[in-house]
Amino acid sequence: MPLNPHYEPMGQEFVKQYYVIFDNPATRALTATFFSHNDSFMTFEGEQVLGYYKIFEKVKSLPFQKVNRTLTNVDCQPTGDGGILMSVLGRLQCDDDPSLSFSQIFVLKPDTSPNAYYLSHDIFRLNIHDTE
Amino acid sequence: MPLNPHYEPMGQEFVKQYYVIFDNPATRALTATFFSHNDSFMTFEGEQVLGYYKIFEKVKSLPFQKVNRTLTNVDCQPTGDGGILMSVLGRLQCDDDPSLSFSQIFVLKPDTSPNAYYLSHDIFRLNIHDTE
Repeated sequence: MPLNPHYEPMGQEFVKQYYVIFDNPATRALTATFFSHNDSFMTFEGEQVLGYYKIFEKVKSLPFQKVNRTLTNVDCQPTGDGGILMSVLGRLQCDDDPSLSFSQIFVLKPDTSPNAYYLSHDIFRLNIHDTE
Repeated sequence: MPLNPHYEPMGQEFVKQYYVIFDNPATRALTATFFSHNDSFMTFEGEQVLGYYKIFEKVKSLPFQKVNRTLTNVDCQPTGDGGILMSVLGRLQCDDDPSLSFSQIFVLKPDTSPNAYYLSHDIFRLNIHDTE
């Protein structure tokens, strides 16, 4: 499969849409529907969960309501199977907690239906600068 | 192709070895040999370069000598083609510059030879906490 020629605007737009859905507590759990039932990996603060159901449970269990997020960098690269690798850096504040930096990596993979994609990989880490 | 059952120790070991070679100014340019001639993407501080020769030139052009690096988190996930996605967070100090946080993402992809891999993706960002 050739590289996706639209990987840059598609990746940038996906990241924006993902956070609109995630940052609203009423729609947050819907982000799990981006993942496949069996072939998707999420690593959240070092805890790895596999597949839609486990990812849905993980997202549902997050205790915060309000999210205030700013993105600093979104770097996109095309993958050999027509998908997109995205690296996101930014800051976020959950409820009244302090504002913390975060890193999140996404991989969008073409699905079997034409023009459909699913999230095959998601790696999230909070407070990435507090490393000393 | 099935998932790589050894993705975790292989990913952790690759990251260690990569930085041993990169952080020594005498061997740094050799890191370019991990990449393929045509199918590898590097995004360095937002600048995208494609393929071994451009990546070699980029690595050769880096002006610092001494690197003092500490790793905070290395998260690994297997990819559907038998490869490995790695997310690295840490701090580094180049020569006498201040110590800064960094984020780096690698994807190792199986090569056509058995048990051989190449780096298909590398995304690097420095000073990731300085976002306010």
